[in-house]
Amino acid sequence: MSAKRIVIVGGSAAGPKAAARAKRLDPGARVTLVQMGESLSMASCGYPYYLSGVFEDRGLLISTPTGEIRDPAFFASAKGVTALTRTLAEDIDRTAKRLTCRNLDTGQRLELEYDKLILCTGSTPFVPDIAGRELAGVATLHGLADADALKEECREAMGKRAVIAGGGLIGLETCEALTTQGFQVVVAEAAPHVLAFLDPELAMLLENYLRAKGVRLLLSTAVTAFTGENDRLRAVRLSNGEELACDLAVVAVGARPNVDLAKSAGLEIGITGGISVDAFLKTSDPCIYAAGDCIETVHRIGGHKTLAPYGDLANLEGRVAGENAALGDRVRFPGTVHSRICKVFGFTAGSTGLSHAEALAAGFDAISVVNAGPDKPGFMDGKLLVSKITADAASGRLLGFACLGPGNVNRQLAQAAMALMGELTLSDLATADLPYAPPYSPAVDHLIVAAHILENKLAGRLRGITSIQAKARFDGPKPPFSLDVREESEQRQMRLGVGETLIPIGRLRESPGLLPKNKKREIVCYCKVSMRGYEAQVVLGDLGYENVNVMEGGIMAWPFGRAK
Amino acid sequence: MSAKRIVIVGGSAAGPKAAARAKRLDPGARVTLVQMGESLSMASCGYPYYLSGVFEDRGLLISTPTGEIRDPAFFASAKGVTALTRTLAEDIDRTAKRLTCRNLDTGQRLELEYDKLILCTGSTPFVPDIAGRELAGVATLHGLADADALKEECREAMGKRAVIAGGGLIGLETCEALTTQGFQVVVAEAAPHVLAFLDPELAMLLENYLRAKGVRLLLSTAVTAFTGENDRLRAVRLSNGEELACDLAVVAVGARPNVDLAKSAGLEIGITGGISVDAFLKTSDPCIYAAGDCIETVHRIGGHKTLAPYGDLANLEGRVAGENAALGDRVRFPGTVHSRICKVFGFTAGSTGLSHAEALAAGFDAISVVNAGPDKPGFMDGKLLVSKITADAASGRLLGFACLGPGNVNRQLAQAAMALMGELTLSDLATADLPYAPPYSPAVDHLIVAAHILENKLAGRLRGITSIQAKARFDGPKPPFSLDVREESEQRQMRLGVGETLIPIGRLRESPGLLPKNKKREIVCYCKVSMRGYEAQVVLGDLGYENVNVMEGGIMAWPFGRAK
Repeated sequence: MSAKRIVIVGGSAAGPKAAARAKRLDPGARVTLVQMGESLSMASCGYPYYLSGVFEDRGLLISTPTGEIRDPAFFASAKGVTALTRTLAEDIDRTAKRLTCRNLDTGQRLELEYDKLILCTGSTPFVPDIAGRELAGVATLHGLADADALKEECREAMGKRAVIAGGGLIGLETCEALTTQGFQVVVAEAAPHVLAFLDPELAMLLENYLRAKGVRLLLSTAVTAFTGENDRLRAVRLSNGEELACDLAVVAVGARPNVDLAKSAGLEIGITGGISVDAFLKTSDPCIYAAGDCIETVHRIGGHKTLAPYGDLANLEGRVAGENAALGDRVRFPGTVHSRICKVFGFTAGSTGLSHAEALAAGFDAISVVNAGPDKPGFMDGKLLVSKITADAASGRLLGFACLGPGNVNRQLAQAAMALMGELTLSDLATADLPYAPPYSPAVDHLIVAAHILENKLAGRLRGITSIQAKARFDGPKPPFSLDVREESEQRQMRLGVGETLIPIGRLRESPGLLPKNKKREIVCYCKVSMRGYEAQVVLGDLGYENVNVMEGGIMAWPFGRAK
Repeated sequence: MSAKRIVIVGGSAAGPKAAARAKRLDPGARVTLVQMGESLSMASCGYPYYLSGVFEDRGLLISTPTGEIRDPAFFASAKGVTALTRTLAEDIDRTAKRLTCRNLDTGQRLELEYDKLILCTGSTPFVPDIAGRELAGVATLHGLADADALKEECREAMGKRAVIAGGGLIGLETCEALTTQGFQVVVAEAAPHVLAFLDPELAMLLENYLRAKGVRLLLSTAVTAFTGENDRLRAVRLSNGEELACDLAVVAVGARPNVDLAKSAGLEIGITGGISVDAFLKTSDPCIYAAGDCIETVHRIGGHKTLAPYGDLANLEGRVAGENAALGDRVRFPGTVHSRICKVFGFTAGSTGLSHAEALAAGFDAISVVNAGPDKPGFMDGKLLVSKITADAASGRLLGFACLGPGNVNRQLAQAAMALMGELTLSDLATADLPYAPPYSPAVDHLIVAAHILENKLAGRLRGITSIQAKARFDGPKPPFSLDVREESEQRQMRLGVGETLIPIGRLRESPGLLPKNKKREIVCYCKVSMRGYEAQVVLGDLGYENVNVMEGGIMAWPFGRAK
């Protein structure tokens, strides 16, 4: 039997992983990796931290942990893989099972015959077709060349102005990097809020924080044109008519899967625009697999098709595609729960699974609650976490969890992601045995508390409304009686200023004279995080009030202005 | 219908939670909490951090996050619960459904009739019956009074000597606290290793670290007597015959559930010595529930009965017992996976589920692998994690995960615990969608890498041995050929010194002359963490070597002496 020929197109994350895996599992195979760029196996997610100066050695982005450059010589010697860089894959002849390539330096054509082909062609940042997009100073942050160019722009950044088009994950990471380097940064987001995967009441908290860090944030505002002098960017024009002078613009409004090669070979493309693959990551041609940013995958909770262009999944998909290409279809890739995490200055924000809005759109009878609380006990100087947990009302199954704040969001999201993959329910979470010691979590973990609260809401014991719902009622024609049950000392420091009445929780039972006479009047009660707000609802129920709502997450989750 | 009377014995963690939950769910109930001590709802797990000076305000241990002391007035006003402190529960008349108590200050007797009784009687630190245990200066760290006494001892600690009997969780937390306060600390552990829940090759890494922090560690060494002058401790005597002069001794050799009240009432006691309860936390008397340190629960993986005296579980059990006592048996408590975590200076150590040894003892066909790697990409200054993952060979189901090091052990254990509760398999973990960004994890998370390696081992592709097994072979009569495949620059810094041959992985294929002539000779190969060690095994297999083992976790997981 002659050696199996496995050819992989794409040398960023999925491709090198697929190549190495295939070669390890079938040491006799001839594995060839075709890469358009000069570098291989780049740590693309590290670019913002290279820009911000977390590290200055560019070589770290393309080296092994022990400092070896991951170049063709390294792939040959350490992995037994032939890597061809600066080589463009131009055409697939599926009948002949032959890939035609061209060397971008010499122009030389190369034909590679394959038994199995794996497409890891990645994605390309989307830049809208607007005036001036070719100007110097209009950038994206996707490839290593982008990072190099932006690093140059950062060298004398102090006092310069940068506009970032897009308030998604990459937009916000770039915002931090450029701010850290001295740019005055404006973020213009066409949608009403940053990080579209967050429900609005959480996104608004992050927006407040960004503004407090000196970022100018323009929401529901798109960049409509770039204007320049001498081919160099001088300003951006916005959808609100404003023109903002600036020295740099970074477009971060998403990426599109690179499917031209697949499409021209007649492979099936999915409804999201990614290459269609089955559970084995096999395309519509049984000899061709695909992995990474270029594929369409399945949402493990919603069941719908989705694009999931994340570096970690690219690695995991590459591993699966490499194994199946080498040994036949043995390993399934189950899809994504869309776990995301993002550092934004001293905050972390992210989510896993579906937001409330996404869960409704996916057809679930979704119920959610916002929860605020510390990531450690108070005596350990716990830092704030604000989260929103979403479950299916009928089954209690966890559908999603979003979390942000200065606290340990990382643990929260990682354990919630794992809970989603285990298809856990709220009652599973309510009795979960998680590691506890005061340096690492409160005695009852934040996610467990969130499950407790949502169980109470689902059982009708807690009647909760979000901060946005509460604000609408406070501002409405018949505002509810707003009741702050914190201690006086807390209220002296800061309060909502919505005409609230203050009755500390401990005095609520004995203070009927301060409460509305009409037991049917709506009361919205809250405290700092609304644990006492929930207690107040119980007490007010005892006192005969029929229409009491707790403002979820309390003052810590209130994204609007405050008094004092 | 008259108000339901719910009486709870014990005011630490489970009791107050049960009381508050019962009252919330049945606002008409009369809920009475009986507590022997003066304080209520103490943050017991915080005592080591109070001792070490992380915070100095003792009030934080018995206050709400907003600074209210959790005293009987607070329980009455905020929770609607009558709390009786300094009150000892002496007798249960199960026929009359009556609890007899005594006020410890006035001596007054009190009879409390109940419809439902919940026993949360906690545990007592075990102090072996050895000479001198009554001396001043011989302490435990369990109750608030213990913390107060040790805080006094810490006031002028500089240069004093302390001996801690026991290298378990509390022993090591106390070790850090006392060291921080200036004590010279000796830890004497009767077992061969600290933290009995770790397999030895992991425990040894922590032992090395403790010694590097200046702790004198005596293993397989018990304290056999305390000796003193004028009723004050002056030395401890050890099982090795040594006598150690010291100013303070802390006994931390475990705790025993407090079951006297339950036992004298004729309730069933389990084989582990805790109160027997069913899934609803109901004792053998249908009107009596129990929760917290005093109960025997079930191991969710092993299925066996176990004691799980953890503060977080006490809270969760109390909540379940309170609900069932108030509303009838509705909520099940599923037991424990024994999730533990512990800060030891700059290290974190812990585990969830079964160790390899425990899994074998529980009857599983267990397979494990040790894995070492950074908690973030190298360019983000990732910190080391060393872990051991254990799975069932037949089903691939995850059985346990232990982890330690300076890295983010917290996320690792939390997500692994959730994976255990979701009954995930190695292939689930191998394709898990976890949150990734460079500030929070490597592109392929440590636990996922561990699952990949164990899958390879299970499939027979990786042949791995632990550091302890490797050491035994290196020291044996026919030592294997030891092969270090790191770069020369790495080996110049440090090497094992076991007669190893150095061939960097990239030169292995072209260096047959440096390898044994006999293809049947055993080769043990490794690198820094043994990712390259695994690659070397593949290459050596290609070269015809038949008996190659990778040393799992590489040099980072080697707990023995090194050269240089």
